[in-house]
Amino acid sequence: MNPPPHSAPHHEHDEKETGRVEAFSDGVLAIAITLLALELKVPPPSGDPGFSLARELLDQWPTYFAFLVSFFFILVIWINHHRLFTVIRRIDNNLLIFNGLLLMSITLIPFVTDLVATYLQRPEQNIAAMVYAGLFLVNSFCFNLLWRYASYKNRLFDHRTDLKLVAFISRQYAFGPLIYLVILILAAFSAITSLVVSFAAAVFFALPNRSVQQLKDESADTL
Amino acid sequence: MNPPPHSAPHHEHDEKETGRVEAFSDGVLAIAITLLALELKVPPPSGDPGFSLARELLDQWPTYFAFLVSFFFILVIWINHHRLFTVIRRIDNNLLIFNGLLLMSITLIPFVTDLVATYLQRPEQNIAAMVYAGLFLVNSFCFNLLWRYASYKNRLFDHRTDLKLVAFISRQYAFGPLIYLVILILAAFSAITSLVVSFAAAVFFALPNRSVQQLKDESADTL
Amino acid sequence: MNPPPHSAPHHEHDEKETGRVEAFSDGVLAIAITLLALELKVPPPSGDPGFSLARELLDQWPTYFAFLVSFFFILVIWINHHRLFTVIRRIDNNLLIFNGLLLMSITLIPFVTDLVATYLQRPEQNIAAMVYAGLFLVNSFCFNLLWRYASYKNRLFDHRTDLKLVAFISRQYAFGPLIYLVILILAAFSAITSLVVSFAAAVFFALPNRSVQQLKDESADTL
Amino acid sequence: MNPPPHSAPHHEHDEKETGRVEAFSDGVLAIAITLLALELKVPPPSGDPGFSLARELLDQWPTYFAFLVSFFFILVIWINHHRLFTVIRRIDNNLLIFNGLLLMSITLIPFVTDLVATYLQRPEQNIAAMVYAGLFLVNSFCFNLLWRYASYKNRLFDHRTDLKLVAFISRQYAFGPLIYLVILILAAFSAITSLVVSFAAAVFFALPNRSVQQLKDESADTL
Repeated sequence: MNPPPHSAPHHEHDEKETGRVEAFSDGVLAIAITLLALELKVPPPSGDPGFSLARELLDQWPTYFAFLVSFFFILVIWINHHRLFTVIRRIDNNLLIFNGLLLMSITLIPFVTDLVATYLQRPEQNIAAMVYAGLFLVNSFCFNLLWRYASYKNRLFDHRTDLKLVAFISRQYAFGPLIYLVILILAAFSAITSLVVSFAAAVFFALPNRSVQQLKDESADTL
Repeated sequence: MNPPPHSAPHHEHDEKETGRVEAFSDGVLAIAITLLALELKVPPPSGDPGFSLARELLDQWPTYFAFLVSFFFILVIWINHHRLFTVIRRIDNNLLIFNGLLLMSITLIPFVTDLVATYLQRPEQNIAAMVYAGLFLVNSFCFNLLWRYASYKNRLFDHRTDLKLVAFISRQYAFGPLIYLVILILAAFSAITSLVVSFAAAVFFALPNRSVQQLKDESADTL
Repeated sequence: MNPPPHSAPHHEHDEKETGRVEAFSDGVLAIAITLLALELKVPPPSGDPGFSLARELLDQWPTYFAFLVSFFFILVIWINHHRLFTVIRRIDNNLLIFNGLLLMSITLIPFVTDLVATYLQRPEQNIAAMVYAGLFLVNSFCFNLLWRYASYKNRLFDHRTDLKLVAFISRQYAFGPLIYLVILILAAFSAITSLVVSFAAAVFFALPNRSVQQLKDESADTL
Repeated sequence: MNPPPHSAPHHEHDEKETGRVEAFSDGVLAIAITLLALELKVPPPSGDPGFSLARELLDQWPTYFAFLVSFFFILVIWINHHRLFTVIRRIDNNLLIFNGLLLMSITLIPFVTDLVATYLQRPEQNIAAMVYAGLFLVNSFCFNLLWRYASYKNRLFDHRTDLKLVAFISRQYAFGPLIYLVILILAAFSAITSLVVSFAAAVFFALPNRSVQQLKDESADTL
C-alpha cells in the first residue's frame, strides 16, 4: 500500500475540508430529487359530465414512470456520491470543478425527465429518450472523471482510506459509461425499452452490494 | 439486552455515517414542506367593480386547509425521522434504499396536496381525497419498512441505543398503517371528514408524547 | 443564577440535539429566501416597435420593493433564529412543534410577498398590505411562543447559556408583536407606508446591535 | 504577524459560530444553482408534420448558453465563499448582514439568467446583457465588502488563519469589480461577446489556482 503523496497531518481539519463539499452536493441532490415531483401536474377540473379524474390521473402514466426512473437514478447517484466521500478525505480546486460538472449533470435531470414524460408515446419519443439516456451517459462520465482524478496515485486519500474499496469502485465505474451507451443506442429503437432498462440498471446499482458489505465487514474485523 | 450483531468499534465514525443520510433527508423534507406554500396562488387582479380581494382570498379555503394538513403531516414525519435517527446509529445499503422509498413518498406530498385542494367541493373530491390518504398510507408503510429493517435483531443500533424507546416506537408504528387505512376508507364517503381526521391524527402524533418524555428522563437519570 | 431544572449530563449529545433542528430550519429559511426571487418575472418579448425592455423592467418596481422587504425580513428571522439557538441547548417535543409553527409562518412569506407585489398601486392594496403585515405579526408571535417556552424556568438552557443575553432577548422580543400590530393598522390607511416602515424595522433589527456585542465581549472577558 | 484583536479563547465554539452561516449560505447557493435548470423549458408537442423536436431543442441554444455561464458563475461563487470561510473563523452581526447582501445578489441570478436567455438575439439584447453583467458587478462588490470587513485589522480571523492566503485573496479581489465593469461596458456593444467573456472569466477563476495550491503546500510543510 503506497502512502498518499500529500499525507495530511491534521485529520480534524480534513474532515471539515470535505464536509462542505458534501453538504453543498447534498443540497443540490436533495433539491433536484424533490423538484422531480413538480412535473406531476394536477389535471384541470372540467364541467364535462364524462370527465373522470381517475382516468385522467391514470392517463398520466408516462409522467409517473419517468418520475420513478429519475428518482431512483438520483437516489443511486446520492448513494454513490456518499460512498466516494467515505474514501476521498481531502479536496483541492480541481476536485471542486469536477464535482461541479457532476452537479451540473444532476441539475439537468428534472428537465430531461419532463422532456421524456412529455414525448413518450408520441412520434418524437426516440429523440427524447436519447437525450435522456445521453444525460445519464454524461453523468457517468462525470463520476469517472471525479473518481479517476481523486484516485490517481491516491491523490486525495489518506491513511484511513480503504484501498480494497478503492479497487472495487474503480472496477465498478469502468462499466457505467458502457451501460449508458448501450441504453442510448437502445433509445434510438425503442424509447420505452430504454427507460425500462434504465430503471433496471438503477435498481441493480441500488441493491445491497454483497462485495461492498463484505469489504466493510473485513475492514471492521481488522480494526 | 442483546448486543447488536455487528458492534461498531468507532463511535465517531458512526456519527458521521448517519450524519449524511440525515442531512440529505432534512434537505428533502425542508424542500417539500416549503414547496407546499407554492400552491397558494395570488388571485389575479380584475377591473370588475364587484371584485373583492378579501372574498377571493377567503374562497381559497380548501387550498389553505390542504396546506395546513400537509404541513403538519410533513412536520410530524420530520419529528419521527429525527426520533428514529436518535436510535439508529449505523447505516447499510438497504437502509439507504428504504430511506429513499420514504423520501419518494414525501416528495409526492405537494402533488397530492394540490390535487385535493383543486378538487375539494367538486364532484371528484372523493377520488382526490382517497389518493391523498393513499399516499399517507404508503408513507406509513415506508416508515414501518425502515424501522422493522433497522430494529430487526438490533441490526443498526449500538450500545448507546435506548431499548425502551425502541420498544415504544415499535408499538406506536404498528398503528400508523391501520389509522391511514381507516382514513382512506373514510375518504370514499366524505372527503372533508377524511381531511379533518388526517389533521387530527397529525396534531395527535405531534403533541408532546408523555411516554417518550418519561423514557428520556429515566434514561437521563440512569446516566 | 438558577441552574436549569433538567441539567444535561452530556454536552456533546446536546450539541447534536439542537443540530438537526437548526439544519432543518436553515433549509426551510434558505429555500423560502431563494424562492422570493422566483416572483420576479421576465417581461414577455413584444414585436411592438414602442416596446422598451428598460421601461418594462422599471415598471415592475413594486415587485422589487416587496422582494427587498421580504428578503431583509427573512434574513433578520435567520439572524434571530441563529441567536436563539446559541442559548437554547436542549430540545423537547414541544419545542419542535413551536419551531414548526414558526417555520409555517416563514414558508408563507413568498405567497404574501407575491400578493402585495401584485396589488400594490391597485384599489385592493390595503387588504394585501394588511395580510402581509398580519403574517409578520403572526411570525413575531411564533418567535415569542418559542422563546417564552424555551426560557421559562431556563427549561432548555444549560450551564453554558449566557443569562444576560437571555434577559436582553426577552426584553427585545416583547416589542416585536407591538411593532407589527402598529404596521398592520398603518396598512389599513397606507399600503406603501406600511411597507416602508416594515423595511425600516427589518433594517433596524438587522443593524449591529451594540448591546448584544457588548454582552458577548463581556462574557468573553470573564471566560 | 499581528494577532487578531479579539482573540477567541474557545476554538470549538468558533467552529460552531461560522458553521451555521456556511450551512445557510450553502443552502441558498445550492437552491439558486439548481433553480437555474428550471428555466430550461420542454418545447410543447405539436401535431404539425414539419415539427422537429431536435430542431426545437437546438433552437433554445441561448437558454443553454445562459444556463452554462450562470452555473459556472455560481460554482465559482461557492468555491470563493468556501475559501473565504477557511480563513474567517469568527462572526459578528455585521458579517451576517454583508453575507446576507451577497446572498441577495445570488438569489437574483436565476432571474437575470432568464432575462438574458429570453432576449438574446432580440433587439433588446444589450439591455438584458447589461442587467446581467450589472448583477455580476454588484456580486463582486458584495464579496469585496464582506472580505474587507472581515480582514480589516484581522477582525474575524484567529491564530489558525493563513495570512499569506489572506494577502493573496485581497490582491485577487481588487480585480473582480474591474473585470465585471469592463464586461458591463462590453454588453452595451455586444451582448453575446459579454456573455462569452463572462464565461471565460468564470472558467478562469474556477481553474486550479497555482498560487493558492502552493500557499497550501507551504503552510502544510511548516506545520
